[in-house]
Amino acid sequence: MKLTSNSPTAIRAATTMPEYKLIYFNARGRAELSRWIMAYGDINYTDERIERADWPARKSTIPGGKVPVLMVDDKPLPQSLAIARYLAKQAGLIPSDDLDAAYCDALADTLSEMMAEAYKILFAKIDEDEKKKKYKDDLYPNIISPLLHRLDKRLADREWFAGGKITWADLMLGLVFQGLRKKQPTMLKEFSSVENHVNKVVALPKIKQWIDSQPETPF
Amino acid sequence: MKLTSNSPTAIRAATTMPEYKLIYFNARGRAELSRWIMAYGDINYTDERIERADWPARKSTIPGGKVPVLMVDDKPLPQSLAIARYLAKQAGLIPSDDLDAAYCDALADTLSEMMAEAYKILFAKIDEDEKKKKYKDDLYPNIISPLLHRLDKRLADREWFAGGKITWADLMLGLVFQGLRKKQPTMLKEFSSVENHVNKVVALPKIKQWIDSQPETPF
Repeated sequence: MKLTSNSPTAIRAATTMPEYKLIYFNARGRAELSRWIMAYGDINYTDERIERADWPARKSTIPGGKVPVLMVDDKPLPQSLAIARYLAKQAGLIPSDDLDAAYCDALADTLSEMMAEAYKILFAKIDEDEKKKKYKDDLYPNIISPLLHRLDKRLADREWFAGGKITWADLMLGLVFQGLRKKQPTMLKEFSSVENHVNKVVALPKIKQWIDSQPETPF
Repeated sequence: MKLTSNSPTAIRAATTMPEYKLIYFNARGRAELSRWIMAYGDINYTDERIERADWPARKSTIPGGKVPVLMVDDKPLPQSLAIARYLAKQAGLIPSDDLDAAYCDALADTLSEMMAEAYKILFAKIDEDEKKKKYKDDLYPNIISPLLHRLDKRLADREWFAGGKITWADLMLGLVFQGLRKKQPTMLKEFSSVENHVNKVVALPKIKQWIDSQPETPF
């Protein structure tokens, strides 16, 4: 499946921008942050989605054999966060101050590690009750809750996560906790600053438009 | 243990630079790349090393409860690669071209994932024979060797990994494969471009000086 995203009235002149193609499974997963960033930044791209059944045949045609990969004209860029950071730069979503930019990088790595732990449970070959137990006894108290406490404190006196304006860290925060909240509807209840932040991010008109129009997939 | 590193003749005026303190275990591990970057860039810092026995008492005093953390004046920056990228920026080790900078980010994540898999085996509660088998049957053929093939091809016609000049990706490449080569002396034998690259990086005068003078630790 190929989808060409975003409006033809994109701000940047097409001639000055490389041609982008994001290759991933037909899923949100590790590509969705980059899709949000491109939606927010009016970056035109081809959203190439590989069906699971086609992956064994496609794998050897992908430089490095892994997805997501972003084709920048004919040059492949692997690694989901490297792709997202690069696109965030093009979309003006990186703080100009080096330390603020580093805070965004650190949050991205922390959220990515947290999601890797969550996926480990989600895709483990154990039954639903065991998954619930692992979430309740380990993932939530040891990883998710301490992070939510820190984020709630930080966001209590800031409009945005770093640098006084919206960055890719805000988009990732919104994406990740919106996703987790769908599975655990009360998760953010005692973290009102985080909850408000997530609500603010998903209500951004271009993000809302992308969420409402994107293909329905289980992950 | 506290060590104050690098020469007092550092190029930058002390007044314009923040005070840096890198807090980690008394080990190379996930802090060593940042130490190499600071050695290369003549960045003064306090190298605070926590002994394992002292960790339970210190953990609660560390913002976020995890190391490495870089104190930038009084502000804590967590996450080893966010720290390294920030310091690389200060040391002039990030390419000015966005896509070249993204290639460095992607390599850093790929090497970091590879090392995480290597550490999993190294620290697994299995005997030495089982570790050797996991290395031989899984880690080397599925993860290390494919990456070495790609890197060897890339470095065959380039003096540096990205952007035509030395970057933090070259330092990380040197650090990681020098470390693995110590454990597996023939590892780079069929990858002469990678081997030459590693040798070139570890022979850089400031890197050599740091390697020769750093505390001896098992990891």
